[in-house]
Amino acid sequence: MKTRIISALCMLPLLIVLYFGGIPLLIAAALIAMIGADEFTKGFQALGVRPSRKIVFLMGIILYGVHLLIGFQPMLLLGWIVLSVAVSLIYGWDIKNRGPYDALATLTTILYVILFPYHMVLIDNTDYPIMVWMVIIAAFAADIMAYFTGMAFGKHKMCPNLSPKKTVEGAVGGLLGSAIAAGIFGYFFMPEHLIESIAIGLFGGLVSMAGDLTASAFKRQMGIKDYGKLIPGHGGILDRFDSVIFVAPAIYYFIIFILP
Amino acid sequence: MKTRIISALCMLPLLIVLYFGGIPLLIAAALIAMIGADEFTKGFQALGVRPSRKIVFLMGIILYGVHLLIGFQPMLLLGWIVLSVAVSLIYGWDIKNRGPYDALATLTTILYVILFPYHMVLIDNTDYPIMVWMVIIAAFAADIMAYFTGMAFGKHKMCPNLSPKKTVEGAVGGLLGSAIAAGIFGYFFMPEHLIESIAIGLFGGLVSMAGDLTASAFKRQMGIKDYGKLIPGHGGILDRFDSVIFVAPAIYYFIIFILP
Repeated sequence: MKTRIISALCMLPLLIVLYFGGIPLLIAAALIAMIGADEFTKGFQALGVRPSRKIVFLMGIILYGVHLLIGFQPMLLLGWIVLSVAVSLIYGWDIKNRGPYDALATLTTILYVILFPYHMVLIDNTDYPIMVWMVIIAAFAADIMAYFTGMAFGKHKMCPNLSPKKTVEGAVGGLLGSAIAAGIFGYFFMPEHLIESIAIGLFGGLVSMAGDLTASAFKRQMGIKDYGKLIPGHGGILDRFDSVIFVAPAIYYFIIFILP
Repeated sequence: MKTRIISALCMLPLLIVLYFGGIPLLIAAALIAMIGADEFTKGFQALGVRPSRKIVFLMGIILYGVHLLIGFQPMLLLGWIVLSVAVSLIYGWDIKNRGPYDALATLTTILYVILFPYHMVLIDNTDYPIMVWMVIIAAFAADIMAYFTGMAFGKHKMCPNLSPKKTVEGAVGGLLGSAIAAGIFGYFFMPEHLIESIAIGLFGGLVSMAGDLTASAFKRQMGIKDYGKLIPGHGGILDRFDSVIFVAPAIYYFIIFILP
């Protein structure tokens, strides 16, 4: 409960950033990506796996830096992804000093923790920049509503191994909460897209839970409780933004492929 | 020696496919990707890591199938990449039955073994479909010339841990051979782009060696000698096409970003 209130308070500066969009949003996304990558690579070290932090940060600087200089170019982004794969694999050449998973962890960190949050910037570049709000609404409405519904009605464990406190009832409440919150937002700010807003709320709420479970699965495998201590007693950036990171690309491709 | 002659003979059907381009080329690229993914995932099993073969093959069918149906769409390819990341990570949820690296190996197989060869199809879709030949010329000219130059003049070991037979002299010979072969090809088939052809030969030759070393590094880490036995006594698809897989994206982005 206290965690949730404090984490909500942490979101206040983010809301200001969302309001402005543009470069402030790019800086916020880059910070989430870079601090997240710092936490994620340290998490791997707990397993004895050492992804290349230099490569991860360098690819992050290139991604957000190139966007700042020349904007979004799909072909450049594809080239950046292929370069990330190649550089990560080349990092694995030094078989004498590196384990078999160092290259794989480097690549996964780049694509999951660096590339996913970049989609907040991409949403800001579509014809629907206002949809950036939907990322936050879906991620946090689902989390908060799942918590309260689970507390009140939770009976059936959803995934006891991965996240023992989560219940099926809570998940249903989270999905409904996210759909309702997105619907209210759509009613006021995008009345011509009300149905799509509710659909995005449902879809975003579902993906939000997937983001949460993904971050939990890695934490369990790494044997750590939290990714960091950025917010004292309340974990790191990845603990707070695990859902946001997953929801951003989901909503971006929803806008690109489904929204009229 | 014998290996090289036989492997050259194996290339004959590929040359016919290159001549036709289009759907035959797409089928050849898809076969390299799928058989390569079969070999690569089996290689991981030697380490006790079990990437999801179902997810890898499914994403492969989607990639090549969608191209067959609607052609190349950069935004669709970006969406496919993000979906590959998400699905691979979700595969890692089942922490009770899966190791910490199963998701990472799934993602790496998709991006390295499925996505890289797809760039042969992409080259075929540019304004320079003839450049598909350059992939084969750079990959095999570098390999053959490095072999002979190394035999004749090789003294200084290049990377004793990774590939003990390779010498610096052989590598220089391979680069020169690739540049000369690409230059001859350019002289006859793209005389207006002779300088660029030689540059592609040099660049492609360098990347060809990177592809070779990458495949070797994984084999050493996996503790296997060959990826497969498709060609009896001469290894699997990944042993023969390790260079081609790396050179294809390099030449594609060279065409897109550098060629006038």
